[in-house]
Amino acid sequence: MRFQQLLHVRRLASAGATTLMRRPITTTTITTTSRTALAATYPAFATTVRTMAGSGAPIPELTEITDNVQRGNYATLTDKDVAHFEQLLGKNFVLTEDLEGYNICFLKRIRGNSKLVLKPGSTAEVAAIMKYCNERRLAVVPQGGNTGLVGGSVPICDEIVLSLARLNKVLSVDEVTGIAVVEAGCILENFDQRAREVGLTVPLDLGAKASCHIGGNVSTNAGGVRVVRYGNLHGSVLGVEAVLATGQVLDLMSNFKKDNTGYHMKHLFIGSEGTLGVVTKLSMLCPHSSRAVNVAFIGLNSFDDVLKTFVSAKRNLGEILSSCELIDERALNTALEQFKFLNSPISGFPFYMLIETSGSKGDHDEEKINQFIGDGMERGEIQDGTVTGDPGKVQEIWKIREMVPLGLIEKSFCFKYDISLPLRDFYNIVDVMRERCGPLATVVCGYGHLGDSNLHLNVSCEQFNDEIYKRVEPFVYEYTSKLKGSISAEHGIGFLKKDYLHYSKDPVAIGYMREMKKLLDPNSILNPYKVLN
Amino acid sequence: MRFQQLLHVRRLASAGATTLMRRPITTTTITTTSRTALAATYPAFATTVRTMAGSGAPIPELTEITDNVQRGNYATLTDKDVAHFEQLLGKNFVLTEDLEGYNICFLKRIRGNSKLVLKPGSTAEVAAIMKYCNERRLAVVPQGGNTGLVGGSVPICDEIVLSLARLNKVLSVDEVTGIAVVEAGCILENFDQRAREVGLTVPLDLGAKASCHIGGNVSTNAGGVRVVRYGNLHGSVLGVEAVLATGQVLDLMSNFKKDNTGYHMKHLFIGSEGTLGVVTKLSMLCPHSSRAVNVAFIGLNSFDDVLKTFVSAKRNLGEILSSCELIDERALNTALEQFKFLNSPISGFPFYMLIETSGSKGDHDEEKINQFIGDGMERGEIQDGTVTGDPGKVQEIWKIREMVPLGLIEKSFCFKYDISLPLRDFYNIVDVMRERCGPLATVVCGYGHLGDSNLHLNVSCEQFNDEIYKRVEPFVYEYTSKLKGSISAEHGIGFLKKDYLHYSKDPVAIGYMREMKKLLDPNSILNPYKVLN
Repeated sequence: MRFQQLLHVRRLASAGATTLMRRPITTTTITTTSRTALAATYPAFATTVRTMAGSGAPIPELTEITDNVQRGNYATLTDKDVAHFEQLLGKNFVLTEDLEGYNICFLKRIRGNSKLVLKPGSTAEVAAIMKYCNERRLAVVPQGGNTGLVGGSVPICDEIVLSLARLNKVLSVDEVTGIAVVEAGCILENFDQRAREVGLTVPLDLGAKASCHIGGNVSTNAGGVRVVRYGNLHGSVLGVEAVLATGQVLDLMSNFKKDNTGYHMKHLFIGSEGTLGVVTKLSMLCPHSSRAVNVAFIGLNSFDDVLKTFVSAKRNLGEILSSCELIDERALNTALEQFKFLNSPISGFPFYMLIETSGSKGDHDEEKINQFIGDGMERGEIQDGTVTGDPGKVQEIWKIREMVPLGLIEKSFCFKYDISLPLRDFYNIVDVMRERCGPLATVVCGYGHLGDSNLHLNVSCEQFNDEIYKRVEPFVYEYTSKLKGSISAEHGIGFLKKDYLHYSKDPVAIGYMREMKKLLDPNSILNPYKVLN
Repeated sequence: MRFQQLLHVRRLASAGATTLMRRPITTTTITTTSRTALAATYPAFATTVRTMAGSGAPIPELTEITDNVQRGNYATLTDKDVAHFEQLLGKNFVLTEDLEGYNICFLKRIRGNSKLVLKPGSTAEVAAIMKYCNERRLAVVPQGGNTGLVGGSVPICDEIVLSLARLNKVLSVDEVTGIAVVEAGCILENFDQRAREVGLTVPLDLGAKASCHIGGNVSTNAGGVRVVRYGNLHGSVLGVEAVLATGQVLDLMSNFKKDNTGYHMKHLFIGSEGTLGVVTKLSMLCPHSSRAVNVAFIGLNSFDDVLKTFVSAKRNLGEILSSCELIDERALNTALEQFKFLNSPISGFPFYMLIETSGSKGDHDEEKINQFIGDGMERGEIQDGTVTGDPGKVQEIWKIREMVPLGLIEKSFCFKYDISLPLRDFYNIVDVMRERCGPLATVVCGYGHLGDSNLHLNVSCEQFNDEIYKRVEPFVYEYTSKLKGSISAEHGIGFLKKDYLHYSKDPVAIGYMREMKKLLDPNSILNPYKVLN
């Protein structure tokens, strides 16, 4: 039985590799399934993206009311303000109607009440807006693709929305050094496409790539499925241009990998979720895109086997390992039920792993991955699976992983947690939480970036439910804190987690965060009600 | 002729690989030649290290006098202060005599006049020292291995030296996640050794590894020869514990790759050269050490061929490329003249490159590197060279690269510059500078981390000479600034470059650097006279 499974795996691997090696570099390197590609395959997906997650879910009540938010001591927008902005930007770029898409977050959990969206077309215009708002004490929320999951990119009360959508140009891509300069509002997928034209790739990849902005990615220090290979954005972002609340332009751009001239302040804007400044431009180090991409999708019987397989992947795949993802049975099954177009090559296991390799020589990579899979099966850690280097099949497998989070929010409300935990305790919390919630929850499951110790714990129920909410929070944060984990691995703090920051940050650090905020935004007009409470 | 050279290269490569594959993982992966190893091979080297660079050079005059430094408005050390510290740390760890090694910088360019060296043994002791000094307004310079090249780690006037040497423990190394926790005073080589015991490696490697401290590396955001593969410390350092000037302990430690809980303030301590806080502990992501290491040392006829070879290395070696270094003829010849024990496998070329690969499978890597070298020779870009995977030979070749900077300071004074420049203009400045200096300079040469666009420009002369100084500075900074380069790629600003910071940082950014300094060190007692003027 096991031998047959092994043959199955090897057969697929060879077929894929043959296809792969016949194709030129830039087209074979298909990475995660893009939303655009998904929309082409499956028209309903396009609708899902456009109307935001949980299309069946009702428009939420105003967050100011549901969460009893005390509006800050800001000025209220007047017609004179609107006229000023119209003069500054032109009428086409000052929106006062149909603002729902800007006011409601991706998860339909937060709804602000902004009356004004501004769409500046240059750094100078962003600076002029901020200077005016700072003088007038008008609060502002910077907004990129609005795909954040913690309510960081939507207004909470009536903040002005500052959309970066028009700052969407890739300014330069240097094929030799791999350094690209891009405006903040550029959609991640477009940036990656431009990089691929010269044989490079953006070292960041995540499900929302067809709509999220690179500036938003940087502002939230987005993680995604490639951190295991390329590290986080603090390593990849070489320079940042940010407009401060005062309207000053802080030029921390650099077109070099090494620049040790003074304090490395650009990092304050990577992951501060638009509360310290508006990122308008950045430079990024882009690695060469890989000639060969192989993906294994494997089934395992226990979390212990998952861990052993991860260690084996690190040791045996070494420098070509580019993703190491975990999906549990319930997460997979929910996606398969919701999206009938998905085809899982295997079924019936409690755990699944998606392991991707990216390398410069297909036959070498194929040999490494086959050896890794074969050894894992012989040791009884890997039960069954598929390995493929065929771009179409690679895309199909990534599609499964990408649809998992969407499956959970398609027809129900979902409490989503994004935590870092020690690997030995990585999965326990899913079982613990399932027991705590009992029949109140429809699905309690876990998936995520095992290679980075980053678990996405999800608790689904028919609709938002206070009883289940109380069973889940703050328990999940207390649990994580006891294990010295991070209560937000990659999503950030935003509005939804600001009351829980202290579970992961000590009081001295939080005190200095407040001082940094005061220093850079003395009137506290930038993205209020977020990160710090 | 060319065919013979090609054979020569290939022959060495196969011999090395055979040797390599017979040995177990942890011992074959010899990376750069350590100073300890050098000292064993060549006893004079140990002396060089112990007595600092330029052992023939005289002890310099006090910098306070030569550079006309206005002492800050700090308190003066009293017997009562010394008694306080003796009570706090114990008499053995309060030094008041034989302080020359702490007062003089590695290059013998800066000499301070400190009367007191403190050697705390815990974070709590560092905190107690800082609290006392802050209250008393006593200035303090944190010191690691004192191997910095810009005078950042020595006193300028009479600052108390706070040595981190006793905080030297590796606290934990997690084989599975690759995350290590280490105290700041741990010597880089010892840290790496400990990581290698479990199959990991520290993603930082530089010539001074046998004496520099990991805390000093982090405080200066040290670069070195592996940035091309592993990126910079902002990507690798996961957490930092820093003691502020006030004595507060800022705990920004994290044992996870992903932690998006609030502002990423740890980066303020990476590269701020001990002016914002004293790094006492840190966590770092350590990659798996590679089973196979190959090194090519090749000769080239022009800088144009160097660039073409770099592009080819990035494309063909891809994920296994771990170093890409350039040495020009004059730099190499100076080292060969000074250190007779060095053996260069090739000679007579204007440019040399050292290209290293590190991978998980020896035969794959050998095939890739041979293909790369073979193609380069066929295209006429690579003239001759050696490729080896034999650990002894790998070490011999790295020894050449490591001795280059020491060759230049062994018997003469050397103006050293560390700049980032666009690759197309990377080497021009060496020729330009040679012409400017004429016969006043004995050697004008360039070497460095080509893979990171980082050039070490060196101007040697018999002794410090004001005329040559004026020809070199500020010209070198103006030149770099015009090309929008960095005037300090990896060495930092320290004392020596603080007047030139404005060539690479804009006034708004410098203004906010000052504000950060005020916020974190209100009495300006931490490492004064450095970074900001």
